[in-house]
Amino acid sequence: MTAPYGTVRSTETGRLTSRGAATRAHIVAAAADLVFERGVSGISLDDVLSASSTSKSQLYHYFADKNALIRAVIVRQTERVLGWQDPHLRHVDSIAGLRSWCQAIVAVQQLRRGVGGCPVGSLASELSDASEDARVLLAESFRTWEARLETGLTAMQGKGELRAEAVPADLAAAIMAALQGGLLLTQTTRDTRHLRLSLDMALDHVGRHVTEPG
Amino acid sequence: MTAPYGTVRSTETGRLTSRGAATRAHIVAAAADLVFERGVSGISLDDVLSASSTSKSQLYHYFADKNALIRAVIVRQTERVLGWQDPHLRHVDSIAGLRSWCQAIVAVQQLRRGVGGCPVGSLASELSDASEDARVLLAESFRTWEARLETGLTAMQGKGELRAEAVPADLAAAIMAALQGGLLLTQTTRDTRHLRLSLDMALDHVGRHVTEPG
Repeated sequence: MTAPYGTVRSTETGRLTSRGAATRAHIVAAAADLVFERGVSGISLDDVLSASSTSKSQLYHYFADKNALIRAVIVRQTERVLGWQDPHLRHVDSIAGLRSWCQAIVAVQQLRRGVGGCPVGSLASELSDASEDARVLLAESFRTWEARLETGLTAMQGKGELRAEAVPADLAAAIMAALQGGLLLTQTTRDTRHLRLSLDMALDHVGRHVTEPG
Repeated sequence: MTAPYGTVRSTETGRLTSRGAATRAHIVAAAADLVFERGVSGISLDDVLSASSTSKSQLYHYFADKNALIRAVIVRQTERVLGWQDPHLRHVDSIAGLRSWCQAIVAVQQLRRGVGGCPVGSLASELSDASEDARVLLAESFRTWEARLETGLTAMQGKGELRAEAVPADLAAAIMAALQGGLLLTQTTRDTRHLRLSLDMALDHVGRHVTEPG
């Protein structure tokens, strides 16, 4: 059952002309949209060809096979999530900043009615058992995302706003779990109630480690 | 993309001989095992036929199509999860009982190294966008599971151990989100760290609503 997401071609390692990089990015973006909509198992390379209006030879120039393309999709979806959350993740060094980040996520899910779930979490659920290479890449995606939270919490601690005994990495991990569970339940129920309750719980959890004013 | 999980055949409504019911249950159990291992998209009816050693005509006697079988798998996986958790879910009317339930889940995940994730959660991630009927059924599964937690928390409140202003349904929803997120991250990282941290957070969350002794 383990698919070789690990095969790397020289065209994937960054040695591309700018035009080549643009074509490759265009293919990955089209594939990522399709995967978000239908899951990895729901798409074929032919679907990607027609969605991206590229030729088979172009696609195979950049990706050895579907596995190589999916690996690029994992990286791309992680960048997308971190990209749109970036303005909020820059300010998670206070409870107010964490709350804004949570509110932004809830707002997006409300608009989307949970459809698609988390772009990274959905890939993790689909691929973690099917491909060890994909699993490792997805664990890395979560680690990168969580590191942003940890950085903010560590800064809070540096400013003396979070107690010395609080462990930023553990708080970040609990927040990520609350977020992922809330997103899955939002996808299933088409209602942000679980997400709101779990993120409120996570904020309270951080709040318990906040130093008393004065 | 919406598949008709909604079609019900008379043979699925319970009017079966005991031998018929046993055959049907045997097919569903084999399908559930395969789905847990490979996901819904990773199995065909032929896989189920060979895994259950039944004939095509037997299978089609009980299930109109793959969608009907998958609907039965959702019900079966929910029963399995609630079945093995039942001895613990009977005692979630105290913090100690909730803690035992959490510990039992962590212990299973530790043994399994997170492989497969949550049998219900994985189906929810795979099917919620692909089939509206499956989504509704899975939302019902979560509701049934959560109701067990809510019942315990309501009993705690009845005994005066949980403050009157606590909302058992909301606490149960937050616990379920923490659990689902922890399970997904355990599946992805092959480590129960996120699960332990998120369930500890959920227990603390309930603990904050516990009345002071005396």
